[in-house]
Amino acid sequence: MSGPMFELDDAVALLARTPATLDTLLRGLPEWWTTANEGPDTWSPFDVIGHLIHGEETDWLPRVKIILEQGESRTFDKFNREAQFETSQPRSLGDRLDEFAALRRENLRALAALRLTAADLDRTGRHPAFGVVTLRQLLATWVAHDLDHVMQISRVLGRQYAGDVGPWRAYLRVISGEQG
Amino acid sequence: MSGPMFELDDAVALLARTPATLDTLLRGLPEWWTTANEGPDTWSPFDVIGHLIHGEETDWLPRVKIILEQGESRTFDKFNREAQFETSQPRSLGDRLDEFAALRRENLRALAALRLTAADLDRTGRHPAFGVVTLRQLLATWVAHDLDHVMQISRVLGRQYAGDVGPWRAYLRVISGEQG
Repeated sequence: MSGPMFELDDAVALLARTPATLDTLLRGLPEWWTTANEGPDTWSPFDVIGHLIHGEETDWLPRVKIILEQGESRTFDKFNREAQFETSQPRSLGDRLDEFAALRRENLRALAALRLTAADLDRTGRHPAFGVVTLRQLLATWVAHDLDHVMQISRVLGRQYAGDVGPWRAYLRVISGEQG
Repeated sequence: MSGPMFELDDAVALLARTPATLDTLLRGLPEWWTTANEGPDTWSPFDVIGHLIHGEETDWLPRVKIILEQGESRTFDKFNREAQFETSQPRSLGDRLDEFAALRRENLRALAALRLTAADLDRTGRHPAFGVVTLRQLLATWVAHDLDHVMQISRVLGRQYAGDVGPWRAYLRVISGEQG
């Protein structure tokens, strides 16, 4: 399970699905649910979509281009994890979902246009905290980051029923917080 | 966050979304990914869809009917969490996704036909381990159980890249296993 599994085609297949997955899960749910969080300093599904939008705008593809054009000589800009609270973003969930989908589609078009080779995937850049990283690691992280937030959103939604499931909370890891 | 939030319409809205959410996420992904798990005695996304099918067939709506028809006098049958490994189920992921969607659609039609009232939601049944539970708790658990497994599937998919993300694993809760 922990050996290298990354293939570019698989990664793109997953990245292309995420906007529609989140759209299907969230669009049309009552607003109390999509704006609920897990307590102070935690994110609602609405916040998470804003974070994903910001990643499309400033993080993933820009870093791909830095690696290809400047390599290790140009450290990546730091990714502002709180940008969705600071910058102007669509104010309705539906508009955020639309914007995320449009940006992802455009970024995957730009990625395909780069016609990355296996040798390209070994090219390196410089992360502000980690130092040298490869393009392959960056692309794998883009995928895992999507899945991290699908996981988070389903957990945040599920936990809103913590006070409703009665004794079943013992069986529900989404509520108990246990892994497994 | 832990007060009672359950409303029947919201619950149905979520339950109706789950098959399409999982279809969008999983259909067409490479088979190595949808059949990968987290190690011995853990489930792949393919296994989870089998578990969800079995729940539609034997667990959720049958228990609703037991509560309405027999109340606490008839203890629920135990839910076999391993049935997807023991009973005959579709052998392709696409067929399992189709079957889950069809069963869920049918069960939500049957649920709507019951025209449950607020008083009905307070009716009680008997769980084999927990004792007395309410219909409201059962329905809330159906929802949270869906979200638990969306969370699990996204985690299992993400963890397959544990060996590919390099130093970013420190930031990815889907891989590190940390909450938050």
